[in-house]
Amino acid sequence: MGVVVRNIERPDLAVVAALGECGVATVHEAQGRTGLLATYMRPIYAGARLAAPAVTVSLPAGDNWMIHVAVELLQAGDILVVAPTSPSTDGYFGELLATSLQSRNVVGLVIDAGVRDVRELTEMEFPVWSKAVSAQGTVKETIGSVNVPVVCAGASVNPGDVVVADDDGVCVVRREAAADVLDKARDRVAKEDETRKRLAAGEIGLDIYGMRERLAAKGLKYV
Amino acid sequence: MGVVVRNIERPDLAVVAALGECGVATVHEAQGRTGLLATYMRPIYAGARLAAPAVTVSLPAGDNWMIHVAVELLQAGDILVVAPTSPSTDGYFGELLATSLQSRNVVGLVIDAGVRDVRELTEMEFPVWSKAVSAQGTVKETIGSVNVPVVCAGASVNPGDVVVADDDGVCVVRREAAADVLDKARDRVAKEDETRKRLAAGEIGLDIYGMRERLAAKGLKYV
Amino acid sequence: MGVVVRNIERPDLAVVAALGECGVATVHEAQGRTGLLATYMRPIYAGARLAAPAVTVSLPAGDNWMIHVAVELLQAGDILVVAPTSPSTDGYFGELLATSLQSRNVVGLVIDAGVRDVRELTEMEFPVWSKAVSAQGTVKETIGSVNVPVVCAGASVNPGDVVVADDDGVCVVRREAAADVLDKARDRVAKEDETRKRLAAGEIGLDIYGMRERLAAKGLKYV
Amino acid sequence: MGVVVRNIERPDLAVVAALGECGVATVHEAQGRTGLLATYMRPIYAGARLAAPAVTVSLPAGDNWMIHVAVELLQAGDILVVAPTSPSTDGYFGELLATSLQSRNVVGLVIDAGVRDVRELTEMEFPVWSKAVSAQGTVKETIGSVNVPVVCAGASVNPGDVVVADDDGVCVVRREAAADVLDKARDRVAKEDETRKRLAAGEIGLDIYGMRERLAAKGLKYV
Amino acid sequence: MGVVVRNIERPDLAVVAALGECGVATVHEAQGRTGLLATYMRPIYAGARLAAPAVTVSLPAGDNWMIHVAVELLQAGDILVVAPTSPSTDGYFGELLATSLQSRNVVGLVIDAGVRDVRELTEMEFPVWSKAVSAQGTVKETIGSVNVPVVCAGASVNPGDVVVADDDGVCVVRREAAADVLDKARDRVAKEDETRKRLAAGEIGLDIYGMRERLAAKGLKYV
Amino acid sequence: MGVVVRNIERPDLAVVAALGECGVATVHEAQGRTGLLATYMRPIYAGARLAAPAVTVSLPAGDNWMIHVAVELLQAGDILVVAPTSPSTDGYFGELLATSLQSRNVVGLVIDAGVRDVRELTEMEFPVWSKAVSAQGTVKETIGSVNVPVVCAGASVNPGDVVVADDDGVCVVRREAAADVLDKARDRVAKEDETRKRLAAGEIGLDIYGMRERLAAKGLKYV
Repeated sequence: MGVVVRNIERPDLAVVAALGECGVATVHEAQGRTGLLATYMRPIYAGARLAAPAVTVSLPAGDNWMIHVAVELLQAGDILVVAPTSPSTDGYFGELLATSLQSRNVVGLVIDAGVRDVRELTEMEFPVWSKAVSAQGTVKETIGSVNVPVVCAGASVNPGDVVVADDDGVCVVRREAAADVLDKARDRVAKEDETRKRLAAGEIGLDIYGMRERLAAKGLKYV
Repeated sequence: MGVVVRNIERPDLAVVAALGECGVATVHEAQGRTGLLATYMRPIYAGARLAAPAVTVSLPAGDNWMIHVAVELLQAGDILVVAPTSPSTDGYFGELLATSLQSRNVVGLVIDAGVRDVRELTEMEFPVWSKAVSAQGTVKETIGSVNVPVVCAGASVNPGDVVVADDDGVCVVRREAAADVLDKARDRVAKEDETRKRLAAGEIGLDIYGMRERLAAKGLKYV
Repeated sequence: MGVVVRNIERPDLAVVAALGECGVATVHEAQGRTGLLATYMRPIYAGARLAAPAVTVSLPAGDNWMIHVAVELLQAGDILVVAPTSPSTDGYFGELLATSLQSRNVVGLVIDAGVRDVRELTEMEFPVWSKAVSAQGTVKETIGSVNVPVVCAGASVNPGDVVVADDDGVCVVRREAAADVLDKARDRVAKEDETRKRLAAGEIGLDIYGMRERLAAKGLKYV
Repeated sequence: MGVVVRNIERPDLAVVAALGECGVATVHEAQGRTGLLATYMRPIYAGARLAAPAVTVSLPAGDNWMIHVAVELLQAGDILVVAPTSPSTDGYFGELLATSLQSRNVVGLVIDAGVRDVRELTEMEFPVWSKAVSAQGTVKETIGSVNVPVVCAGASVNPGDVVVADDDGVCVVRREAAADVLDKARDRVAKEDETRKRLAAGEIGLDIYGMRERLAAKGLKYV
Repeated sequence: MGVVVRNIERPDLAVVAALGECGVATVHEAQGRTGLLATYMRPIYAGARLAAPAVTVSLPAGDNWMIHVAVELLQAGDILVVAPTSPSTDGYFGELLATSLQSRNVVGLVIDAGVRDVRELTEMEFPVWSKAVSAQGTVKETIGSVNVPVVCAGASVNPGDVVVADDDGVCVVRREAAADVLDKARDRVAKEDETRKRLAAGEIGLDIYGMRERLAAKGLKYV
Repeated sequence: MGVVVRNIERPDLAVVAALGECGVATVHEAQGRTGLLATYMRPIYAGARLAAPAVTVSLPAGDNWMIHVAVELLQAGDILVVAPTSPSTDGYFGELLATSLQSRNVVGLVIDAGVRDVRELTEMEFPVWSKAVSAQGTVKETIGSVNVPVVCAGASVNPGDVVVADDDGVCVVRREAAADVLDKARDRVAKEDETRKRLAAGEIGLDIYGMRERLAAKGLKYV
């Protein structure tokens, strides 16, 4: 506790951008169905879709001091990931902090707690994935840490990991694995494009994936 | 378990369509306040409103194989109703399956679990009522059943029952009762049209419904 | 139980209107972080923002009779606050009651339970903050009270208190404190306007608020 | 609504008793993993274990009138199954009703809502499986039904079905299937007795069930 | 915020003790079904049963400083009532604080948050009704208030109010109403004693309460 | 996915045992309030208290195959830690598996899901901390991993980490930090023993911890 890591390694930004285009569901599948944050993490408005390197914050319930500490460590293109050390729905973040982050070209926030000023954040097009919306303010009394490994909404996030987020939720990709996951995600996209055409033309999964025999072997009975 | 019923009886489609126009709240009242699914079943986008005969699927947690089995049993105008046998928020369904269903003119999905690709589903105008949004994929290992009676989000649904769904949630009407419920729903709509006019003109329910005497009898005191 | 208070004191309507412009987060901070309703109270559509004097209703689970009783006690500009005496998600309120309230220029509803006809309420632009959306109707059998103090979604509300509500949730301000809270809220707005400019220009909170020294004193370490 | 079925068919009581000895987990497995009530249904005290034919009650939220109606329809050895038509945690049942049921040798209660007087119920050894404990009383104003099919805690229960309940929860077995399920449950018990001995002696499941080859085929890697 | 009221009026202790003997369910009924705390407030061990005047504490999430402030204001026979200003499950209280309170003959704790050291508290026979059990500690940085009105678990509690608690939960009785509520509770106990005898002897509620006619009038049908 | 690590480093067992004696609350404080699992993790029976090295299992929802794989990797004194990759309340574990583990002197189970046979597990004195109790069985179809880092109930657990568990919940201590955390925990125990005596003798925290001045500086007012 009480440690701020100034410099972190960030992933290749071209890889990051490409992961964002693949989207959460595809990336999550591509890395073996790991890294998904809990489904209670919802966007405050629909339509945002991004990927970015994580700057992580660990802080106590009801205290947002460390978010202020994190601001100057955030670079253009980063996303802020905030994890309280015990469950909280308080509003740790609002349009003033968003103004500050947007002036630094930070692209968004993922927080396992609440946010406020959601109308203003929506107008500013500053995307947030959060557990709650709450006007409840927080104090600035107790220190935490910045850029340490955290568990956020049930997923382990290291500083510099790639956070992919869209209307389906949030997924984290280890920095070291990003390029490899992207390759697999692209394969998946290509394969799905193919499948989509066949499905749209009226073929069905049972035939495309050759499932009938295995179903019969499992004992499925048609009556 | 492991049974697929190929042929089900479907209700009169004119009745089905008319129930959809009445909407969930009216239909639910008209059949004696029965058949409503749990309130956690929410539409992935606002504004969809429909009624359709149910094709039902019972499947295990984290396994969507039986949805693939159900596809060829779904006819134009049907809705797919999916009920896992234990609680799950996984994403059993996404835009590939929706593409397949839409190519068959299936009108929507009700699932007591999660869905993914909600942005794409919204763009496709494929309506879904679900318990969760989740990118978490599922396996294809264990068989279940299609077109058997299921309990979905706390309501009992038989294959061929009418599912009515809109922004208020989801309600199920027994196939055999559909025509009768429609009659009652229409009566209700007519009566409400009348009442709405009087309320809009400034009359109030206490007088329209003649409640003052009964309230006094119950001991209500004005001070 | 069973008491209806006809006449309540209402706050200065200019003060009420001005509180509405400040918004929930600001008002909540201005009165010392008190009076916020639970975060499960969400608007049925985004964008509504208002303040209004509360007419309060206490009623049993699954019974909306007292809402009908409250109608004639609601004046133009009021908001209806409904608190069941035990937890409920039933739909106590729909477009008929909204029609009645809108004909009296009542501005909205806050209910620690469910509402229905949300599509119609949205089209009517009748804002509601509720715990749930549910088509489940209620009976009219048991009396409760109107314009008595209630606890609604974890906050104590007296008749005539100011309810402030927007996309961040709902906050209640004691009638007697309204003018004082408004003063503090306006100070806060002014101060935040100033801070916003500095943040937008690239200054950061650590410097604006002079936090670096206190953080060091607490033992924060940069590595 | 508003229907009381006086006479129901009950299952063979020897079969019922034998199912109770098998316990919930075994019976649930034996009938293909169906019929389990939601896991929020918990016993008010540990150690009760029983099976009994269900007398079912469907009633509104916050109203326990129909439980009084059901009393005279309950026979020695029966269990009462209560399902509100919308979610409720109210205390529908306490020691007075338990006294009445115990005088008729009714063996317990399963209720998808709350109970009260849990200390007295425990002293009386009247077992209850419920969603909540709550002192909140209910009214007697609105009728429902007795001995109709209900959905209780996510499971469909018909009057006369066998309810099996113990510290693991509650499971329902169709009356018509009871004897067949008992056969399968007994097979299971016998097989498990055998397996238990081997496991206690230090053999492990991987070998007993011959899983190693199939795991290797699935690609499991040891490092 | 930041106010400590040293002296509060306490109710007649004979009345308080007598309310404790009546128990939560009876007292709650006797005062018109008001004052019950949320059903998530559960005892950390079964069997405790008490009534006591409340010393109230309002404090921030994750900060138990004000509990220390309250200690010297608690008198023999009091109960401590703690309400965070936003939802929290942290462990605000453990055996050290309980030792301190027990040395002052304080009789228990009601907290809308978490406690820890539940094994030790159980051994000490220091009863606690709480929302959670959690080892998560709290800080001592931000002030709150003592002996101000609070909302605790959905119920309004004033300092000096009578808190009644047992295995059914927690109920609060206004200090001024305590004697009157006791009278009504005793009437109820007497009446229930009478009813219990009749029920135990085999009479049923339908007859004792004379419900058959009213049920028929409501349209209940026996088939 | 699909990786089983046969050999893991285990911590010094004397240190492990000593941590178990300190208990969860003390250990959690001693390591800076980190490592606590979510408060929904509850013991299936009261009174168990232990510490043990973790053997970790990552597996899919509704599939307990990997628990069988883990059995032969568990040594005397170990604890099994099971984390599904998406939320589940199914019963992955019962008395047969417990028999197998107990024959190997494994000391317990921590599972972010459900268990069954809780009566038998209690009789066997095989302690379990779980999210749910559920008779719902699981399949054996899809592989996962053993002895990889997992997130269990919101806490990151590595194989060989020390799991401390008692009636307050579950806390994880990094293997490398165990000796250091034990030193701090013992300091804490000693200090608390001292404080307990003073509190029992009637001194209060405000004086022992010297808080009065700081409270006054924060603006606390006594009235």
